[in-house]
Amino acid sequence: MTPDEYMQLALAQAQKAAEIDEIPVGCLIVNPAIGEVITSTHNQNQHTFDATAHAEILAIRQACEKLSQNRLWNMDIYVTLEPCAMCAAAISYSRIKNLYFGAYDEKGGAVVNGVKFYEQKTCHHKPNVYGGIMEKQCSEILKQFFQNKR
Amino acid sequence: MTPDEYMQLALAQAQKAAEIDEIPVGCLIVNPAIGEVITSTHNQNQHTFDATAHAEILAIRQACEKLSQNRLWNMDIYVTLEPCAMCAAAISYSRIKNLYFGAYDEKGGAVVNGVKFYEQKTCHHKPNVYGGIMEKQCSEILKQFFQNKR
Repeated sequence: MTPDEYMQLALAQAQKAAEIDEIPVGCLIVNPAIGEVITSTHNQNQHTFDATAHAEILAIRQACEKLSQNRLWNMDIYVTLEPCAMCAAAISYSRIKNLYFGAYDEKGGAVVNGVKFYEQKTCHHKPNVYGGIMEKQCSEILKQFFQNKR
Repeated sequence: MTPDEYMQLALAQAQKAAEIDEIPVGCLIVNPAIGEVITSTHNQNQHTFDATAHAEILAIRQACEKLSQNRLWNMDIYVTLEPCAMCAAAISYSRIKNLYFGAYDEKGGAVVNGVKFYEQKTCHHKPNVYGGIMEKQCSEILKQFFQNKR
């Protein structure tokens, strides 16, 4: 599968989030060696009473648990929105190899926006970063969600 | 109770971590209005197979769950080490009011070191920060732990 195809699956997760009134961000963790989707998640902030329940944190926690390891060497993560500081750091700590994200996030992003975590001396593992994958669709689903809120 | 006394309880958690070979960082979340310790946690990285299982993330998740709310308005957090980027951001997202930490962390900290998350435009809630609470003891337990590893 191509990055666009994986991102399409992450978008389907974002859509699920929107349907239950969660901010529509979806995420996958993939083992690219065998093309296996290890986990697919979406934001769960409201429903879980958990301030840390961003899609990426949930995906990392579930993948670690599923694989019984606290490092995700050689895994890829796909997320429809540029990760925030919490998630960017968690991706680094889990040693994920490649980060693919969709929409850019000027307000809360921490990869190419904000603190640019991976460019800092206090970052000790930097994934390869591929931004703007299916950017238009990933951005559109968020815009729609917030427009409906007004 | 005073900040030093709460930090002493966080240090007891750090000690528990050391005893099971986890990096000795301990954390409390406190409701200062009634002096109640809501949660007390320590690092669980190794034992839980969870790259995100820093003491602060666990404390926030447990406190949110216990209180059935995804925001911890007016709560205080005590942690024996300066929070990293992941935890500093999680503290911000959970709307904790006051952050008390012990040892400073030049290598991985994100409050007064590193990305200084709370000083960034992409940070939308900044707790009051009190660093260096029982600094010597909080630092010493980490030094001892890593010395024993060599």
